[in-house]
Amino acid sequence: MSLTVVGSVAFDALETPFGKRDKILGGAGTHFSLSASFFTEVNVVGVVGGDFSDAEWEVFRRHHINTDDVEVIPDGKTFFWSGRYEYDMNTAHTLDTQLNVFETFDPKLSERSKTADVLFLANILPTLQKQVREQCGAARFVAMDTMNFWITSMKDALLETIKVVDCIIINDAEARQLTEEPNIHKAAKKILALGLKAVVIKRGEYGATLFTDDSYFVCPAYPLETVFDPTGAGDTFAGGFVGYLAAQKEITDETLRRAMIYGSVMASFNVEEFGTERVDRLEYHEINKRFGDFKRMTHFDEIPFERGISA
Amino acid sequence: MSLTVVGSVAFDALETPFGKRDKILGGAGTHFSLSASFFTEVNVVGVVGGDFSDAEWEVFRRHHINTDDVEVIPDGKTFFWSGRYEYDMNTAHTLDTQLNVFETFDPKLSERSKTADVLFLANILPTLQKQVREQCGAARFVAMDTMNFWITSMKDALLETIKVVDCIIINDAEARQLTEEPNIHKAAKKILALGLKAVVIKRGEYGATLFTDDSYFVCPAYPLETVFDPTGAGDTFAGGFVGYLAAQKEITDETLRRAMIYGSVMASFNVEEFGTERVDRLEYHEINKRFGDFKRMTHFDEIPFERGISA
Repeated sequence: MSLTVVGSVAFDALETPFGKRDKILGGAGTHFSLSASFFTEVNVVGVVGGDFSDAEWEVFRRHHINTDDVEVIPDGKTFFWSGRYEYDMNTAHTLDTQLNVFETFDPKLSERSKTADVLFLANILPTLQKQVREQCGAARFVAMDTMNFWITSMKDALLETIKVVDCIIINDAEARQLTEEPNIHKAAKKILALGLKAVVIKRGEYGATLFTDDSYFVCPAYPLETVFDPTGAGDTFAGGFVGYLAAQKEITDETLRRAMIYGSVMASFNVEEFGTERVDRLEYHEINKRFGDFKRMTHFDEIPFERGISA
Repeated sequence: MSLTVVGSVAFDALETPFGKRDKILGGAGTHFSLSASFFTEVNVVGVVGGDFSDAEWEVFRRHHINTDDVEVIPDGKTFFWSGRYEYDMNTAHTLDTQLNVFETFDPKLSERSKTADVLFLANILPTLQKQVREQCGAARFVAMDTMNFWITSMKDALLETIKVVDCIIINDAEARQLTEEPNIHKAAKKILALGLKAVVIKRGEYGATLFTDDSYFVCPAYPLETVFDPTGAGDTFAGGFVGYLAAQKEITDETLRRAMIYGSVMASFNVEEFGTERVDRLEYHEINKRFGDFKRMTHFDEIPFERGISA
């Protein structure tokens, strides 16, 4: 089983009420691949500049992530994003975005990346997502992310891309914006009707919800008293979700449900520290323990109520 | 097993995007007792005016609710509330409130009401809640509601009342306001520390969460494409939650979890039609079917992940 992800590999500068970092490893492709690497073999497709140093490559190496398809443009600079969070950690205030080498990103997939049986298209230009998807004809499961910017500026192209994937993982505001439907259940059904097998709606501190044609599954968020840095939480969720599925023989209702939990487990670790710091040193026993916590948070026995004075 | 509830019995005038009603049966005591009546014997303690007609009494009779302690003030008028909902059903816009006979409500509990083994104090003056609680010394489980108005205007009295009950059922904004703590998990722990056995936080379309000293349980909301009228949803939740517990030999972590689900089941029916209309004609097979839906919405098998290339 192998998994290819196409997305940004970046430097972030972050400020939260708990501290700051001037230049740390970030990007959707990074967070996704690090998270997915706990479950399966990962190829990451991206682009960086000459400023990408051995310390960053080492994070990928440590997790056996194949970076052969991360193009290096020696005289370019790596994508840089700077953001600040107030106590309301749901909203990132962008201070600076320098696309740099990412502006002309032209994903080049090796044979190994093209033949992966699962593909994740992180948030990039919808037309690029579609091109990559078409190069990976053998993939048995393709999932994608997107963002409000593309829904506003390239909705038609985005819809064409959605039609050629199996699953979309977006947040509730994006689902509402995409469908112009305020009710999240109606919105999810409209998106499913584009031809998807699964729609995953991320709802921040309220968890995430899975919609398929014949199933509906709700996964809560892990109860955290402090969210240290939410950057990359969505990509880390997607990495756990798609990575777990890539490691399964079959994608069924049962494996999709567990994938939702693994996605939530991974995201809950991600937000405990800055950037990739926490997931980078995560261990399996911690993942499995937290998976058990999710079971205890949601489990109840089904015992029908039998008496009733007004029966 | 029997259950006493003290709270408002009222007339409501409602306007929603789906229609309107000029004068229908409402009030926290009404919604609660109707919901709880599916699980146990219920005594309701309240006050109405001479305008309360046989059609209203018949709703209580149909559900075998004991109304002996609903005082009738023949020359008074029943509490009247008029509200309007826009498409955002989370916010009720109050058009008119006429407290009428409820303004001088002085709960008078018969021996039968006093000796019930479970008590629910719906949202009334905190000092009155405490007086009632003290009259029901034999109750093995006492739960209460409150509202933002009392948190602002009578916080000290409210805290004294909370200290003499076992469980509080409030919404997330109220929990934050009461504790001045934005993080809902920290807020719930602060409230628990007042001496409660259980804190239930209602989160509207995101469901409800149970906090005890050694357990944390998340119950999603039922996925509804249309919320017709949310009036009374919180009291109907409380009626299912407390009513189910009153019917159990023991209040344990297991029964509390199932009570959360029954509360959510009952609330999900309540919002499907105006006022008490849907719950009034609800049948047991519908309740048990929807309980099963909640199981399917949340169930997954715990299978630890065993391999990992970076292990």
